[in-house]
Amino acid sequence: MAASYESMFGGILAAIDAEMRAVRQQQVEIAPLLWEMLDHHFGWGAGTSGFQPGASGKRVRPLLMALVAQAISGEYRHVLPAAAALEFLHNFTLIHDDVMDHSAERRHRPTVWALWGGDQAINAGDGLYALANLAVANLLHAEVPASKAVRAAQVLAQACLWTAEGQVLDMSFAGREQVTTAEYLTMIAHKTGGLLEAATKIGALLSSDDEPVIRAYAQFGRDLGLAFQVRDDYLGVWGDEAATGKSATGDIREKKKSYPVLVAFERAAAADQAVLRRIYAQEALSDEDVADVLDILERSGAIAETDRSASEYFERALAHLDATGIANPTQDGLRQLAAFLIRRAY
Amino acid sequence: MAASYESMFGGILAAIDAEMRAVRQQQVEIAPLLWEMLDHHFGWGAGTSGFQPGASGKRVRPLLMALVAQAISGEYRHVLPAAAALEFLHNFTLIHDDVMDHSAERRHRPTVWALWGGDQAINAGDGLYALANLAVANLLHAEVPASKAVRAAQVLAQACLWTAEGQVLDMSFAGREQVTTAEYLTMIAHKTGGLLEAATKIGALLSSDDEPVIRAYAQFGRDLGLAFQVRDDYLGVWGDEAATGKSATGDIREKKKSYPVLVAFERAAAADQAVLRRIYAQEALSDEDVADVLDILERSGAIAETDRSASEYFERALAHLDATGIANPTQDGLRQLAAFLIRRAY
Repeated sequence: MAASYESMFGGILAAIDAEMRAVRQQQVEIAPLLWEMLDHHFGWGAGTSGFQPGASGKRVRPLLMALVAQAISGEYRHVLPAAAALEFLHNFTLIHDDVMDHSAERRHRPTVWALWGGDQAINAGDGLYALANLAVANLLHAEVPASKAVRAAQVLAQACLWTAEGQVLDMSFAGREQVTTAEYLTMIAHKTGGLLEAATKIGALLSSDDEPVIRAYAQFGRDLGLAFQVRDDYLGVWGDEAATGKSATGDIREKKKSYPVLVAFERAAAADQAVLRRIYAQEALSDEDVADVLDILERSGAIAETDRSASEYFERALAHLDATGIANPTQDGLRQLAAFLIRRAY
Repeated sequence: MAASYESMFGGILAAIDAEMRAVRQQQVEIAPLLWEMLDHHFGWGAGTSGFQPGASGKRVRPLLMALVAQAISGEYRHVLPAAAALEFLHNFTLIHDDVMDHSAERRHRPTVWALWGGDQAINAGDGLYALANLAVANLLHAEVPASKAVRAAQVLAQACLWTAEGQVLDMSFAGREQVTTAEYLTMIAHKTGGLLEAATKIGALLSSDDEPVIRAYAQFGRDLGLAFQVRDDYLGVWGDEAATGKSATGDIREKKKSYPVLVAFERAAAADQAVLRRIYAQEALSDEDVADVLDILERSGAIAETDRSASEYFERALAHLDATGIANPTQDGLRQLAAFLIRRAY
């Protein structure tokens, strides 16, 4: 299925990659190590060129932005500076997340953190944030009105603030005994949904002055983010390990307070809730604990509810697309991209 | 002397503080902990209001920006959104620096890192960077042309990239045996000079279309940054502990590769250079080592050279002010602020 993602969107993905590389190349290098770290993170070693999804990530966010722009206006080149900025921002959060999570690998390469240590990885992320801000300023050369460039920058800044707030919440949940599903949904709406909403909103506002259309695309992005994250949580417990690359019960073993677990905490029978509390109060989980949790998730209806919830957000996202009143092949492409994301079939 | 800094600039400092608080108050709180961390960092506890230099830092960068604007145009209110953004950016770098340095205290309060740990402090800094970007977008409400708002944002982004690069260099110097004075000056020109240059450049470009005037103010800021840092290095070795709050020989004991030490490494007699190399190869320095280093700094002329260098950058900075051709009481105020900074008499 990888071919289908690339065969459908390869042209736009190449244009996004070229824009990102151009912004990076425009910079005069003061500290070569900063650029070495960033080139490593993006898989931009000597001799590489063009879009390589395995090495560089799938570029979902800038692709969404470009497709929204094209669905509205028939063109996408005018959003490329903002698309590059958005992908830089997403990667700045990944570099810092890897520091916090002590993650050793990303995209089959050692993380910046693993190679250069936490302190230099903080600097790499900070520098990449600055590079994103420089990228978005290039909107002026894309003949976008300056007031729209400022608005796009504002949407990106708001999304970054939300991402940081979502990350603060996520980390503070880990140390709490009780988290409600409502709190959890607020967290992922900001941590995951923030940048996806920014993608579709900026694609729209740089291509249209019709505020209801801009709003509908923004809501499409946010609900798609929620659908994606709830679905990700589902796959973290019941996914096919070979297809997703995630260990099927990894989220349980790591005591992640993901959506299905929180549903079970709220809906399981009293005796099962007591078992859950006892298990999650432990430092580490045994194989038996993991099996017990899986049984309770099944009995409490958490599987069905997680599946239902992901589908509901996905349907809502598609309804917002319909509400734009726009119908053309690119709009159909947006529907397919949304489906790829939810099915992890790309 | 503190009274004199505040009595001269108190009105502008209060306006900057009000702008910063207004931007912070405009935000809908998603993660209360993020705002708790930022309020703590800025000393914005319940019941506080107005500018309190001890609790909030001296706000030198936004003050420079406002004074340049006023020297050119007679007004400073139109730069307040950029001034607030710049102070947020400076503080974002401080919060992350405190993580890297494991600093326990800043402004007589525990650091964000010390209270909430490194991971949440990374998030606090990231969130503050986003807040800075939101602040600068408010330039549109200040009736600045949108193209100038984008240019101001671009200058800020470039300065942040330079600050990150300077920090990368600074940290990599710590692990190297040899660093030249030229490399060191490049590092501080970016790490310290970047945001100071942004301050004066943005103050000018938001108040004038005269590119040579904008350039002269930018150079004033950069040279002032160099003068400030070299002077800071001087005080880190020969300062009056009571006046500066820095331990007079602290920089030597911590094996900091500060300007005077690097001068000695380059200019001391061969035998003294060998002693320096031996001492700096050690894990920790004894009292005798510190005394030996001080003797070599004296003998090699490093004291005189550091003093001369700081004065030279300071004189250059003032010459750039003269080159603007602007003469009025606010321009005189800029000269006094520069002198305060160098003398640490504020």
